[in-house]
Amino acid sequence: LVFLILFIIGYLCFGALIFEILEQPVEDKLIQELKAHRVNFLTENSCVTDEELEVFIKEVVSAANRGVSAVNNVTMTDANWSFGQALFFAATVLTTIGYGRVTPLSDGGKGFCIIYAVIGIPLTLILFTALVERLMVPAKYFLLFLYRKLGHIYKIFHIQLLHLGIILGTFILLFILIPAAIFAVLEPKWNYLDSFYYCFISLTTIGLGDYIPGDSANQHYRAIYKLSTTAYLLIGLVMLMTVLAVVYEIPELNLGFHF
Amino acid sequence: LVFLILFIIGYLCFGALIFEILEQPVEDKLIQELKAHRVNFLTENSCVTDEELEVFIKEVVSAANRGVSAVNNVTMTDANWSFGQALFFAATVLTTIGYGRVTPLSDGGKGFCIIYAVIGIPLTLILFTALVERLMVPAKYFLLFLYRKLGHIYKIFHIQLLHLGIILGTFILLFILIPAAIFAVLEPKWNYLDSFYYCFISLTTIGLGDYIPGDSANQHYRAIYKLSTTAYLLIGLVMLMTVLAVVYEIPELNLGFHF
Repeated sequence: LVFLILFIIGYLCFGALIFEILEQPVEDKLIQELKAHRVNFLTENSCVTDEELEVFIKEVVSAANRGVSAVNNVTMTDANWSFGQALFFAATVLTTIGYGRVTPLSDGGKGFCIIYAVIGIPLTLILFTALVERLMVPAKYFLLFLYRKLGHIYKIFHIQLLHLGIILGTFILLFILIPAAIFAVLEPKWNYLDSFYYCFISLTTIGLGDYIPGDSANQHYRAIYKLSTTAYLLIGLVMLMTVLAVVYEIPELNLGFHF
Repeated sequence: LVFLILFIIGYLCFGALIFEILEQPVEDKLIQELKAHRVNFLTENSCVTDEELEVFIKEVVSAANRGVSAVNNVTMTDANWSFGQALFFAATVLTTIGYGRVTPLSDGGKGFCIIYAVIGIPLTLILFTALVERLMVPAKYFLLFLYRKLGHIYKIFHIQLLHLGIILGTFILLFILIPAAIFAVLEPKWNYLDSFYYCFISLTTIGLGDYIPGDSANQHYRAIYKLSTTAYLLIGLVMLMTVLAVVYEIPELNLGFHF
């Protein structure tokens, strides 16, 4: 156990170091560009003083961090708290994804969010667990089928691994690779890595929220799009939990026993 | 099961409606204020055209959404991807909290983040599960102690509930109420609700990221502060999982059986 704790601490430091090495220069470049834009803006518009601009930028940045953009056409067309958006937000809270690009601003909203989550997260977990149990029935039939077909050639453990491999492969194909391709086509600014990264970060419930489908300007059918994404996330999470349940069924893979 | 599915869908719609009612007016007000600021800025600085300002704001907002602020003193003093910040980020990825105020910007960073999570999240879960198992030993001794003292007066189920109540109460006091009070003191702009909301949203791993400790300007000892917060989150999550394990030990509370 002590070894595992030390390993995780080491792994955290290792991750921090790599992220620092990879991201620090990109961030520095972004900061430099932004400063250049600022200086440019000030020289081109000589009537604006640095202080006035600073005050204005502070307002714009603080609003942007709360999910409200000061760009004209964006604020005009779509509210963050329309019903479709609010439903998407509610689903991300109950699944603990929590993107956080849109967040409650009012005290009432924060308080309701806490109560809503206290009741809703356990219920969602109960539903997901019940669904996984149902899905495990065909998964086990498929394992028995493999036993019958291959039992005389291979060891049980190898057939279990093959079974896991087929289910995991199907999951990755249907719930990561294909959705990622769809998002890459639908989202104007996402390349395939961005879409893949979005699907992965969402289904692990990390939910960083740097990429969220349907948040670009000029997108059509946003309500249906948000609703489809919500359905994708809910079904995808159940499927991921089913894959994990298949892993748990293989005693050799239960590393937890060693600690 | 069908009833549970319909209930969750209804609960999602109910949540969406309440969030819409609570948040829409606050958001509208924020948008109106921001527009007024914009108009004000344009009239006070008549040399700036609307188009020039729009282009500039677009840059500022897009940078703000990627965690980089165009406010002068902020960008000067602290980088997002210093080692301490990167460590905090790594810990929020492994616990699937994922605040997302700071996110990888480079393709390399996104790719590394995926691989890092694939390896690290299962390891973290194994560690947490092992720690919870250890913590369940004293929790069970405490339950036996309660049985011995109260077994002749109360029913088993009631003693189990008392046991759960004491453990849950201690958890809420030590890992929500007291940390929230500390954050409310340390963070210049957080009231007690904000701090409570932060602790709750983090320990449920929703991690919206609208409130993150140590991100205000002019804070001292930021590295130690971020490190303490990381330790608080890791320990708090293990404790929450222990409370949940105590709940699982009481068969009467296992609602999942009914579906």
